[in-house]
Amino acid sequence: MASKNLFLLAGDGIGPEAMAEVKKLIAAMNAKLGSGFATDEGLVGGCAYDAHGAAISDADMAKAMAADAVLFGAVGGPKWDKVPYEVRPEAGLLRLRKDMELFANLRPAICYPALAASSSLKQEVVEGLDILIVRELTGGVYFGEPKQIIDLGNGQKRGIDTQVYDTFEIERISGVAFELARTRKNHVTSMEKRNVMKSGVLWNEVVSQTHKARYSDVKLDHMLADAGGMQLVRWPKQFDVIVTDNLFGDMLSDVAAMLTGSLGMLPSASLGAPDVKTKKRKALYEPVHGSAPDIAGKGIANPIAMIASFAMCLRYSFGMVAEADKLEAAIAAVLDDGLRTKDIMSEGMKEVGTTEMGDAIIAKF
Amino acid sequence: MASKNLFLLAGDGIGPEAMAEVKKLIAAMNAKLGSGFATDEGLVGGCAYDAHGAAISDADMAKAMAADAVLFGAVGGPKWDKVPYEVRPEAGLLRLRKDMELFANLRPAICYPALAASSSLKQEVVEGLDILIVRELTGGVYFGEPKQIIDLGNGQKRGIDTQVYDTFEIERISGVAFELARTRKNHVTSMEKRNVMKSGVLWNEVVSQTHKARYSDVKLDHMLADAGGMQLVRWPKQFDVIVTDNLFGDMLSDVAAMLTGSLGMLPSASLGAPDVKTKKRKALYEPVHGSAPDIAGKGIANPIAMIASFAMCLRYSFGMVAEADKLEAAIAAVLDDGLRTKDIMSEGMKEVGTTEMGDAIIAKF
Ligand SMILES: CC(C)[C@H](C(=O)O)[C@@H](O)C(=O)O
Ligand SMILES: CC(C)[C@H](C(=O)O)[C@@H](O)C(=O)O
Repeated sequence: MASKNLFLLAGDGIGPEAMAEVKKLIAAMNAKLGSGFATDEGLVGGCAYDAHGAAISDADMAKAMAADAVLFGAVGGPKWDKVPYEVRPEAGLLRLRKDMELFANLRPAICYPALAASSSLKQEVVEGLDILIVRELTGGVYFGEPKQIIDLGNGQKRGIDTQVYDTFEIERISGVAFELARTRKNHVTSMEKRNVMKSGVLWNEVVSQTHKARYSDVKLDHMLADAGGMQLVRWPKQFDVIVTDNLFGDMLSDVAAMLTGSLGMLPSASLGAPDVKTKKRKALYEPVHGSAPDIAGKGIANPIAMIASFAMCLRYSFGMVAEADKLEAAIAAVLDDGLRTKDIMSEGMKEVGTTEMGDAIIAKF
Repeated sequence: MASKNLFLLAGDGIGPEAMAEVKKLIAAMNAKLGSGFATDEGLVGGCAYDAHGAAISDADMAKAMAADAVLFGAVGGPKWDKVPYEVRPEAGLLRLRKDMELFANLRPAICYPALAASSSLKQEVVEGLDILIVRELTGGVYFGEPKQIIDLGNGQKRGIDTQVYDTFEIERISGVAFELARTRKNHVTSMEKRNVMKSGVLWNEVVSQTHKARYSDVKLDHMLADAGGMQLVRWPKQFDVIVTDNLFGDMLSDVAAMLTGSLGMLPSASLGAPDVKTKKRKALYEPVHGSAPDIAGKGIANPIAMIASFAMCLRYSFGMVAEADKLEAAIAAVLDDGLRTKDIMSEGMKEVGTTEMGDAIIAKF
């Protein structure tokens, strides 16, 4: 049997509470279905800094590299606001992305029917929304060098970051976007700022070439990233798959997530390239929401994004498509039954805590 | 009498149609009120490229530098999609911003009461919205060097852009934001990505220092730019003044503009530092919308953003506060009367063309 080693990095804030629900789910799957998942756990973010002065230890990095999939909770909190830049909580996540070469970040923005009314957008604008943002995750301004603050004297400093993209990086991320579009509505919109950025000019050129050479059956549009942000707010249903760089992807996927009214519910997958021999991809799954330190430890966090991230893990890392579908259906069913954590509570619904929500989903699964 | 030399750069697409309405307004003000405006006109964008192979000629640049204020329409269109990067239409606008040192871009996002229902957001989320985005306009990734595409051989290219901010640049833009906040709700939110960008770390530090040293009476919040984009969609009324860098400002101001349902209506001002002797600031005023080539020449474009930009010009360049207030009131009154251009048309309203809309506003003024 293929190995199913999961490495769990719950992190800070509400991360551990959300992860606890996934752990219960994994135990249930092993017991009832004989799914055969093996789990190990490590530290990332502020808790890792507290334990050994780094946002992730080398030992835990090695375990993440060796695992079949990593499940990641969330990192950060006010406690670590003043720690040095190099060991801030986010550095752990960025190292995982970079060292595991997780260049493809998949961020679905779907609007759960039961929650359409709770979006700040009009119901008809978001009802039935189902878009997928494919964000480049190991390049661009996040990792380009030079990245530094220089002291110029006279009280003046200079902050520098460098946006760098090579042809191969744009080619492989657009390939992922085109492949995924074929399983959906067959439409890709590429976003950049080619009117002011040279990396945007190259991005536009390489996406077009990749399209022409290998994916001309897919509909391709180009849009400036600022106009893209506007159009996401105006009429998001015009999109199917959006492919964009690391920084624009960060901004646009957050805007898209908020549109759905389901921010606490959205999962993401970060994937590497398939191994030449085994065809397996390194992968990390994490909720789009953050560590929410203000509600941590109260038992009220919404575990759905973390559970939905595990559904993506079943789908993309283990080819367990039926189980993934079933888990996503269980989430929708529990919402249809009127169960709500505090963040998505509305009149006439039943407010439940983190563990009750997790239990209800497991019961439906 | 102080000079009132206006240099008009109508540009491409709907730019000239919108500018024509402002020209009528200026003529009316000179005739009726003796306002004493002198105007001259030049070319920018695609039309300038067609005329002399550059997105703005040196002669017109000199006139812009010498004017008391520049009124700018819009640039670009499919006709010029393939012109070389250095002479693309946008290069004219970017040169104006850089050479005139227009570092402070003021983008109000207000929701006209008459249009609240036409936003894609729920009416209660945007009704009465009045926020001001203060965007740094002469620095960051727009102008940093190196900015180039390198041929690496083997079919590989590398696109590079550089984000650079110096202390003094952050200091002066945050000063503008704090000053403006004092005339409003006294609240500034600064946005950056200090968790991944060194320029963001410096931005955060300098805004905090400027606040502490000179503006501690103003409420200051810091927000990560991705979270800021989310919060703009979730509950925009939490903001008063937002201060951010050139690229985040580009994205965030477009999202904010779209929230209001009044995209075709929003003006902007780009200001330089006050001259040491004369105290006058170089200034350029332009609508937030683009050149809209699809509707150009049809007489249906909405001239309100251009007219509202002229109102900002009256206010910021000529201290004509009463006239600016009156002009803004005239715009609101015409909307209250039910007049609508095609882009903002809704049931029960009266659809009018560009010139009719302009005439109606002038009549109310
Ligand atoms: C935590 C932070 C470094 C991260 C990012 O900027 O990529 C987050 O915002 C995200 O989108 O995953
Ligand atoms: C036209 C373009 C260069 C410009 C920019 O990116 O600044 C525009 O989007 C804007 O926001 O004024």
